Amino acid sequence: MKTLITGGAGAIGSELAEALLARGDEVVVLDNFSSGKRERVDPRCRLIGADLLDGDSIGGMFEGAFEGVEIVYHLAADPDVRYAPGGPTDAALNRNVRTTYNVLTAMRLSGVRKIVFASSSAVYGLATKRPIAENDSFPRPISLYGASKLACEGMLSSYSHLFEIECWVLRLANIVGPKVRTRGRTVIADFINKLCEDPTRLQILGDGRQRKSYLTTRECVEGMIFAVEHADQRYNLFNVGGDDSTTVTRIAELVIEAMGLQDVELVYTGGKGGWPGDVPHFVLDGSALSRLGWKPRLGSEESVAEAIRETLEGER
Amino acid sequence: MKTLITGGAGAIGSELAEALLARGDEVVVLDNFSSGKRERVDPRCRLIGADLLDGDSIGGMFEGAFEGVEIVYHLAADPDVRYAPGGPTDAALNRNVRTTYNVLTAMRLSGVRKIVFASSSAVYGLATKRPIAENDSFPRPISLYGASKLACEGMLSSYSHLFEIECWVLRLANIVGPKVRTRGRTVIADFINKLCEDPTRLQILGDGRQRKSYLTTRECVEGMIFAVEHADQRYNLFNVGGDDSTTVTRIAELVIEAMGLQDVELVYTGGKGGWPGDVPHFVLDGSALSRLGWKPRLGSEESVAEAIRETLEGER
Repeated sequence: MKTLITGGAGAIGSELAEALLARGDEVVVLDNFSSGKRERVDPRCRLIGADLLDGDSIGGMFEGAFEGVEIVYHLAADPDVRYAPGGPTDAALNRNVRTTYNVLTAMRLSGVRKIVFASSSAVYGLATKRPIAENDSFPRPISLYGASKLACEGMLSSYSHLFEIECWVLRLANIVGPKVRTRGRTVIADFINKLCEDPTRLQILGDGRQRKSYLTTRECVEGMIFAVEHADQRYNLFNVGGDDSTTVTRIAELVIEAMGLQDVELVYTGGKGGWPGDVPHFVLDGSALSRLGWKPRLGSEESVAEAIRETLEGER
Repeated sequence: MKTLITGGAGAIGSELAEALLARGDEVVVLDNFSSGKRERVDPRCRLIGADLLDGDSIGGMFEGAFEGVEIVYHLAADPDVRYAPGGPTDAALNRNVRTTYNVLTAMRLSGVRKIVFASSSAVYGLATKRPIAENDSFPRPISLYGASKLACEGMLSSYSHLFEIECWVLRLANIVGPKVRTRGRTVIADFINKLCEDPTRLQILGDGRQRKSYLTTRECVEGMIFAVEHADQRYNLFNVGGDDSTTVTRIAELVIEAMGLQDVELVYTGGKGGWPGDVPHFVLDGSALSRLGWKPRLGSEESVAEAIRETLEGER
């Protein structure tokens, strides 16, 4: 089976490529290396350096990336969840939407009929049911990132219906792992970086009581592949993540412990969310996928602990 | 109060402009006349012919359209609900999304903090609950138009949170009225046109049992203004329409009757939907807005009958 992974040089994409190669797929990776890294891509993959935003490339189908492909894992997106006051707004929003539009158009024109989409628990936003299942409520994204993922889901839903495209829309928990370190914007990387600079004091964004579901890149990839292999509706929608959560303060404690530090002063910036658009509390309901037979082996806290351990090992 | 209506030369927008002028607003109309008509715009409005897709105009804020504006009624959109096989896909999807992104960006940069958005019952798509309330289910749009409106809603939700913008997101029923005749693509206009050509035979798209909620442009405008005046959350979301529905075959009968025809043969093209992306059956639950004190006086069938009457009168 020939598989295309957009964003295949990213933290999840590169791990997904390994797993698909291991089962015998022919894997094409497309990435613009805006946050992905070339050296992560297994040399057995065909690697195409192209930007999905470049609409002019649609004619050439992004250097033949879609040719003969049976299924696209569409992971390419600007991973920047946080809006920084005064910063640009089009990265997540306008660009992620156009990227997905271009992928769908290229699929349609190339006759590719299957797509797996890495959506996000950020689409739920202020929908406050906990744990939250796939159809519990209308979405209320509060981040540009969440809005962009919701927009993409809507496109997939309509394309699925209009063009007979099979979709697996996977709303991922917060993904953690040693490669998820891009620009230090994830909680684990942030804490490790800060403690390397000053091992006596750790600044925590928000009140530390933010509580979320976490999942390792390894289990995320497992869950994604499982969903595709075991769900066969035209449009399949799943949360991918555990049914539990852990707090930001607990993550801080785990990082401190793993780094062998003691008596670190925790300083909170205060406020419920860590940054504008941060959802302070969410727990995914993973029961739809677990009814099919898959759930993560590790809980949120264990996932975080493993990611911390592997991150620190990678730095040694 | 200074008000900007995007798409103000359209069927709903031009009627909205009249209502806002009547209550004393200073009204600015922005339209690219792709489906709106210049002659519909009341001369008391400031009329700006500009295209919201033109990102370069953001610098000049679309010829000052947003200057000093207190509230934007964002109605500009490609109204083309139907995807024609082989036709373009970017009109509704990519373009409507970018249009709304540009409006939000212009608002943010101009300090405009209130927006009313004409969303659509098309966002519900295959969410089959009937009648369907605002938070009943996650959306499953099946048309490019519905997908584009859902994408815009997600943007509004995130902008509302991040930039303290007050939003009124109004999911409109099928809107009917004498001005809603653009390119003959609405059911009433379609039937009248066909019967003018051949008064003995009427082709009906689908099986005629499609069943939807209808509302006149006049009542739509009333409902929109009422919602803005009576709901004051940061993010307000309402269905605007009645709690009932009528069938396409019944609309055919009403048109035939109003045209004074008899013994017209009804010929069905068959299939559940009239076109790819047509939602065969939906009924809006309008109780959220009616709890605030507004509901349409006319039911779906009466709305359709009034629209037929006024359309035929306009042609005489």
